[in-house]
Amino acid sequence: MPIVLAASVEHADVLLTLFIIVASAKLMAEIFERLRQPAVVGEILAGVLIGPSVLGWVQPTEMIGTLAEIGVIFLLFMVGLETKPKDIFKVGKRAALVGTLGVILPFVAGYLIASVWGGSFVESMFIGAALVATSVGITARVLGSMGLLERETSRIILAAAVIDDILGLIILSVVSSVGTTGIDVGALLKTAGLAILFTVIVGFLGSRVMTRLAPKVQNLQIRRPFFTIGLILCLGLSVASLYFGVAAIIGAFLAGMAMAEATERNHKMHQLTSGVTEFFVPFFLVNIGMQLNLSLFRDGSVIALAIVITVLAVITKFVGGGLGAWGMQRREMAQVGIGMVPRGEVGIVVAQIGLGLAAISEQFFASVVFMAVATTLIAPPLIKYLFAEDVDKDGVIEVVEEHEVPDEFTRIG
Amino acid sequence: MPIVLAASVEHADVLLTLFIIVASAKLMAEIFERLRQPAVVGEILAGVLIGPSVLGWVQPTEMIGTLAEIGVIFLLFMVGLETKPKDIFKVGKRAALVGTLGVILPFVAGYLIASVWGGSFVESMFIGAALVATSVGITARVLGSMGLLERETSRIILAAAVIDDILGLIILSVVSSVGTTGIDVGALLKTAGLAILFTVIVGFLGSRVMTRLAPKVQNLQIRRPFFTIGLILCLGLSVASLYFGVAAIIGAFLAGMAMAEATERNHKMHQLTSGVTEFFVPFFLVNIGMQLNLSLFRDGSVIALAIVITVLAVITKFVGGGLGAWGMQRREMAQVGIGMVPRGEVGIVVAQIGLGLAAISEQFFASVVFMAVATTLIAPPLIKYLFAEDVDKDGVIEVVEEHEVPDEFTRIG
Repeated sequence: MPIVLAASVEHADVLLTLFIIVASAKLMAEIFERLRQPAVVGEILAGVLIGPSVLGWVQPTEMIGTLAEIGVIFLLFMVGLETKPKDIFKVGKRAALVGTLGVILPFVAGYLIASVWGGSFVESMFIGAALVATSVGITARVLGSMGLLERETSRIILAAAVIDDILGLIILSVVSSVGTTGIDVGALLKTAGLAILFTVIVGFLGSRVMTRLAPKVQNLQIRRPFFTIGLILCLGLSVASLYFGVAAIIGAFLAGMAMAEATERNHKMHQLTSGVTEFFVPFFLVNIGMQLNLSLFRDGSVIALAIVITVLAVITKFVGGGLGAWGMQRREMAQVGIGMVPRGEVGIVVAQIGLGLAAISEQFFASVVFMAVATTLIAPPLIKYLFAEDVDKDGVIEVVEEHEVPDEFTRIG
Repeated sequence: MPIVLAASVEHADVLLTLFIIVASAKLMAEIFERLRQPAVVGEILAGVLIGPSVLGWVQPTEMIGTLAEIGVIFLLFMVGLETKPKDIFKVGKRAALVGTLGVILPFVAGYLIASVWGGSFVESMFIGAALVATSVGITARVLGSMGLLERETSRIILAAAVIDDILGLIILSVVSSVGTTGIDVGALLKTAGLAILFTVIVGFLGSRVMTRLAPKVQNLQIRRPFFTIGLILCLGLSVASLYFGVAAIIGAFLAGMAMAEATERNHKMHQLTSGVTEFFVPFFLVNIGMQLNLSLFRDGSVIALAIVITVLAVITKFVGGGLGAWGMQRREMAQVGIGMVPRGEVGIVVAQIGLGLAAISEQFFASVVFMAVATTLIAPPLIKYLFAEDVDKDGVIEVVEEHEVPDEFTRIG
């Protein structure tokens, strides 16, 4: 290779990595679609395949982690764009119950099984905490691709995931404090209060402020004003939420929800945002799959532990979330319960913190990562199955695809 | 900040950086649009402002460099999507002349001025090489925002930029060899031959292959099949072009051109791609501005050198490119000439290689970076001015904007 390329060799490596990730994710998505399985499962498995466990073509790096983070941020921003605040407030009480029960049961179960398995007090607390947080991105992706984000059960799941995230944060703060300095109740209350205040204030005021600002946005001179303001708001609230102690995806979701009414009929803005999202999402999904280190599972007892934790994680979340929806139809309770099951990247982050504090062992770490990936793989087919009737009922078989758009509509912008 | 956020603190930093870049770029774009100046100039100046030279809010990092590279790749992919191969071949001969003259004149001028200024032989060769390569992304952005990419002069500029890039590569290979091991004519011919073969073959066959594959793409089960295949092809050909010794943006342009006919009426695919592009472009523009280190210009002689090199870079490219279009109307010759002026990131990369080989001094390096940024800032207003009449003639004042799309069109996908 000529010297001239020296400056671009590192870019060549990065571009090659991006190419491998997108191409393999989409190839697996195509295969899974043909098998009538959810595309997300294919894309996560693509990560397992090309990651260190099997082929080793791609290693999890800071760069890919960042692209993955941007991916899940835009995924939740898109979901927010299709969620009007009043629809969320309508399901608020039920969602609070779903979120709370869906946190308590997995935490207790995780704590108990880890204790029984010989884990220390701190270790058991960490395993409990790692079982808590739902990764709503996966569920949102599956429901979105089925065109079902506007159903009541979908909204309960979304709202419960916000509450779930805040409760998870509080639990993790407690557990981390126990693992290091001991509990400071004052600091803890401050953390929790800030997180709740931020979410409630932005959730209540965001949409009103944006609806009032909409005419001004429309008068901006830059091209694609709503899309541009959307990008800025999405990134801005994601950062802000981190500083207020909430996950970045909650900020992105709130940003989308704030713009939902102002851009309701703005098809172009949705389409542009969808383009950004679709580019980044494969990195989010592949990155989850890449975290799985299969070599740790040569040990039979680790396999047993991983399976027990996974089974408990599925059952407790399903039962906890489902019970929270008590009073709805039984099928709807099951829908809510299964929608809360995927743990994805959140469980992995918790386990990494525990490992970083030397609070949990390699075996527990591997099992939690297995649980996080496994729940993410198990849930989508069940979600698809439990929601299938709704698709038929609404007559929405599939969202309109690009090649189905009639010609006369194709030259408007 | 609670311990829970430990794992996300680095993500918080990255997200904050992204937010600052996008928000400041779009703020400056809005200001420049209101002053009736090109938005690109505002976005590049945003980079100067927030970069190390002035406010120091953001430092040029590997991460931002990668996002910038993705940005210019998608920019050229979008341009390719609107360029049918036959339109390029039609202007082939003229473009070859424009590209060649537009390379020879700046190279000779750069070599001479550096020699006069006391540069060594190798140093002077490097300065000549740094003045060669046009950064067509800037011109494409300005012409695209004016809706003029389909004009003959625009196509000549695009095709000439491809030829320009290959010639620039050969010159830089020669210069780098002189700076290190001496010239190996065999290796050089092989490099040049590969680069030319790759470009010609992909240019000729790409569109035919894609047009033939289009029905198969349409039958894929994944959502948004053309957009997905477009992403994969764009990344794939960008990487491939680097391995064949051509810039990644040439591969991206060829990928877009290959899909131009197959997706001509696919409005949704263009819209989705446009979303990805618009997200990344601010990083490309801001990154150029950030490269400028104003503190090196405390020395009066560096200022003088920078200004002389910049003036020469503008005049020689304008005259060389313009002369290549001999036989067209004088205004069209001027349009072609000015369209070739921006050097942008390409000139900076050449200078960085020279600095890396210890072949050029800090002063020459600073002057070349100044030239690269300055030509990029000078050209857009002149392009806008010289093409303004065409906008009026075609009745295309501005591309249709999102908020102008009538309501009945907004709910098709």
